Amino acid sequence: MKSPIRPTDDEARLLARDLIESARFAGLAYIDKVDGTPMISRVALVVGPNGAPLSLISDLSHHSAALQHDPLCALLIGEPKGKGDPLTHPRLSMRATAQFVRHGEAEHASLAEAFLSKQPKAKLYIGFADFALVRFTPVSARLNGGFGKAYVLNAEDLARAMR
Amino acid sequence: MKSPIRPTDDEARLLARDLIESARFAGLAYIDKVDGTPMISRVALVVGPNGAPLSLISDLSHHSAALQHDPLCALLIGEPKGKGDPLTHPRLSMRATAQFVRHGEAEHASLAEAFLSKQPKAKLYIGFADFALVRFTPVSARLNGGFGKAYVLNAEDLARAMR
Repeated sequence: MKSPIRPTDDEARLLARDLIESARFAGLAYIDKVDGTPMISRVALVVGPNGAPLSLISDLSHHSAALQHDPLCALLIGEPKGKGDPLTHPRLSMRATAQFVRHGEAEHASLAEAFLSKQPKAKLYIGFADFALVRFTPVSARLNGGFGKAYVLNAEDLARAMR
Repeated sequence: MKSPIRPTDDEARLLARDLIESARFAGLAYIDKVDGTPMISRVALVVGPNGAPLSLISDLSHHSAALQHDPLCALLIGEPKGKGDPLTHPRLSMRATAQFVRHGEAEHASLAEAFLSKQPKAKLYIGFADFALVRFTPVSARLNGGFGKAYVLNAEDLARAMR
């Protein structure tokens, strides 16, 4: 079978960057801490100060305990709009590691400011003790720009995309 | 910490059913066949003839090979609309097993008809040899109806929801 993967170029890296910069939320795949199987949640998502995805997650959520146990996860970034075939809309499937930044840690204030600049309504709960900022460090990604437009991005591609 | 999980009731089961019946696509979490880590994709999704989720997936996709290797996966069903906080929109995180139904198998014709009744544009490619229908059998689910409205649904709850 012919590989559907195209060579990664500037157009692919720019598309990845646009998807991250436009994100308001994402799908999160993780390993369930309780039974060791793949599980999925929706998380808030904005682009962080360094260009990488940034979330705000409650310790009451099922995925918080899972990510604290095993920080390796994947984000689905890029949401279909309108009524067309949703699979023609570009999306980025990014493997990443999750790092919690809690109240009182040095970077919390600047990350909180960055998060609130994109999602001001979160000011209602970002100060709660059970909410932590979660920074995602990209490992690699698969980019799908629509049928027949698939790319694989390595860590260097993603670093260039986030510049 | 107080558990945020509410007792599962008819309202929760009805919400789960509504989310599955309204779905046009979903997030799919699976274990990557190549490196054994959690990965995520977007898939087309409709409600199948038995009330369970049904997809149409190309063998060229990364997740097809993964699901054929390990059919245990999770679906994120329920998409935010409009401009409000996306985390207030209900979503179902459903653990499921994936079963491929290929051209020539007994059930393919009736499942294809069910799929096309919901996504008629797929007639352009549903006949391609590399496209298979994929039926998901629910194992359990977590339902989030918005902040502070979380439920756990077991297989029996899901069977009742899909009636």
